[in-house]
Amino acid sequence: MNILVLSGSNAGSKTRIATTLLKEKLQRQYSGENIDYINLQDVSLPFSDGRNYMDYGGDATEVLTKIMEADVLFIGSPIFQASMPAPLKNVFDLLPQNALEDKTVSMLITAGSDKHFLIPEYNYKPVLSYLKANIVPRYVFILDTNFQDGQLLGDDVDMRLDRLIDDTMVLSRTYQDIRAEKDAQFGF
Amino acid sequence: MNILVLSGSNAGSKTRIATTLLKEKLQRQYSGENIDYINLQDVSLPFSDGRNYMDYGGDATEVLTKIMEADVLFIGSPIFQASMPAPLKNVFDLLPQNALEDKTVSMLITAGSDKHFLIPEYNYKPVLSYLKANIVPRYVFILDTNFQDGQLLGDDVDMRLDRLIDDTMVLSRTYQDIRAEKDAQFGF
Amino acid sequence: MNILVLSGSNAGSKTRIATTLLKEKLQRQYSGENIDYINLQDVSLPFSDGRNYMDYGGDATEVLTKIMEADVLFIGSPIFQASMPAPLKNVFDLLPQNALEDKTVSMLITAGSDKHFLIPEYNYKPVLSYLKANIVPRYVFILDTNFQDGQLLGDDVDMRLDRLIDDTMVLSRTYQDIRAEKDAQFGF
Amino acid sequence: MNILVLSGSNAGSKTRIATTLLKEKLQRQYSGENIDYINLQDVSLPFSDGRNYMDYGGDATEVLTKIMEADVLFIGSPIFQASMPAPLKNVFDLLPQNALEDKTVSMLITAGSDKHFLIPEYNYKPVLSYLKANIVPRYVFILDTNFQDGQLLGDDVDMRLDRLIDDTMVLSRTYQDIRAEKDAQFGF
Repeated sequence: MNILVLSGSNAGSKTRIATTLLKEKLQRQYSGENIDYINLQDVSLPFSDGRNYMDYGGDATEVLTKIMEADVLFIGSPIFQASMPAPLKNVFDLLPQNALEDKTVSMLITAGSDKHFLIPEYNYKPVLSYLKANIVPRYVFILDTNFQDGQLLGDDVDMRLDRLIDDTMVLSRTYQDIRAEKDAQFGF
Repeated sequence: MNILVLSGSNAGSKTRIATTLLKEKLQRQYSGENIDYINLQDVSLPFSDGRNYMDYGGDATEVLTKIMEADVLFIGSPIFQASMPAPLKNVFDLLPQNALEDKTVSMLITAGSDKHFLIPEYNYKPVLSYLKANIVPRYVFILDTNFQDGQLLGDDVDMRLDRLIDDTMVLSRTYQDIRAEKDAQFGF
Repeated sequence: MNILVLSGSNAGSKTRIATTLLKEKLQRQYSGENIDYINLQDVSLPFSDGRNYMDYGGDATEVLTKIMEADVLFIGSPIFQASMPAPLKNVFDLLPQNALEDKTVSMLITAGSDKHFLIPEYNYKPVLSYLKANIVPRYVFILDTNFQDGQLLGDDVDMRLDRLIDDTMVLSRTYQDIRAEKDAQFGF
Repeated sequence: MNILVLSGSNAGSKTRIATTLLKEKLQRQYSGENIDYINLQDVSLPFSDGRNYMDYGGDATEVLTKIMEADVLFIGSPIFQASMPAPLKNVFDLLPQNALEDKTVSMLITAGSDKHFLIPEYNYKPVLSYLKANIVPRYVFILDTNFQDGQLLGDDVDMRLDRLIDDTMVLSRTYQDIRAEKDAQFGF
């Protein structure tokens, strides 16, 4: 199974710290799976111009291919101007229609205020839904005050990340069972 | 009064065609005002890294300064993946908090299907609202089928653009009157 | 000018307390205007069955007529199940299409948690927008912890209510100026 | 397994016709399951006053108990004023917090225009999500023009209802497997 952790910010350190911790947990708990990590700070992606994702070459084709080949996608993201940051939106723009069909997708959001708690619900989920992702309903929402000296503090955050992993992996396996069963029906 | 028409797409031609027509109408109807036009296809903007907009230099500082100096902002935009395209989101990310305070902002959206009619309501307005814009409630929504051979067809579209201009300019002037009156109260 | 304060809850006391305070402020600050107050706890409204609002008789026709005759509408509401309560939604269902056209509408929301801060933005505004209201962008959001012994505590809340009134009355006057000017154009 | 079809409108006939057809399909395809049907036109529910759902008595307790005991819930609903009708919202208000946890919930929406296509996404899903439902992502959206002489027309609608049933039942069964497995882990 291909598990991809995508750190969807090209500024700051909080999303990188949180997604790195998440990736390390996955590596410990799911060592048999193929776990990959992409930080948008490490790649250079052009804005979408409508081309097929295979035709951009360079980082774009590499990043988009990894997303297309993932079975499970953990998206880490800060909130900019009360919505998803442009670099993350751009990744979605670069993907083809229905790109996230049959993929299980969960969210790990960092934000400055509880007042932004519903932004993943209203700004992220409808886009993921349009891309046909199997969305993990409960997301992890971490306040900036949980970060200190480059670290994520709090047992609570730790437990919530474990639960996100658990929810995501169980849902992913579920959907895989469904697909296997459907394929069997049709004699594949 | 500074009026800015922003064509918020860096791909395709429909938003450019529609915003160009809008700009020409403004130039005829409001020839005494300072009317500017920015097409995101003509400029190169980096992703926001949290700096002040004056510190990017180049196209970024030029574009952002024009937005900051505008009294009225017409935003043209296609819909990508059921939401605003990354290049337009990036312009918002590059702007400071409350950047659109005291500005009147209206939207001209091109889309492939009526099923996307509510995306300006749910995906654009909350971001503009967060930026403190005075949003013109009724937006113009133009289907792709209205474009043919590089032109916008239909008397209906023409009338709706005229109405958008009218709604926007009236709202803007009234907000200016309010501000003038408030300033007078405080003796400025 | 007809100003109507609508307490949109039929349970609990917080919305009643907050809207009563708002009404008293309005009576002091705008004593020359016609200020009315409706508490949904005091009336009995049937669910909408599609009839014209004048045909229900009783409380329904009385309440709906007051709303239709209002120039300014202050809506007080708690949040139930992360959205507007059914009794308030029912008032909107009972109203005709475009019922709030040319009315200035503002919101005073009580809630148990800051995590619900964006519900007025995403759940209330699109409905008010569909009804064609001129929506006051900034709403007052009061946490349950601000209520104690049947009273609203805190200078901050007091200031925010004053600001809501100010924003609303100024916007209302603005729209009235616009209408008067448009009517003059057409020689009415 | 308890399957409940809820016709969430107390006016008109379209939602009743569509949900009746859905119920008949379920009865043919899942004759071994316990299939129930509630039409809000046939019951009288008070507005929620915050009591426990068992304490209302009468129709309320009966309807709410059936919902609480359902494993699968099909919600049929028209759109009123660009959002869910008050009678349906009231059912949600009457339910306790987390009422839909471990239930699979799908939607069958009737509407007058494609322009309302995203209302289930933005107005219904966030409420169902708050109630902790396992939401079937793809909903059936039927235009009023598909109804004629008290019947639902079109092979397309027929196929989409079959697909809704299939998606819902598969998702429900898989969630049940997950729960069974988790319970086994903990030795229940």
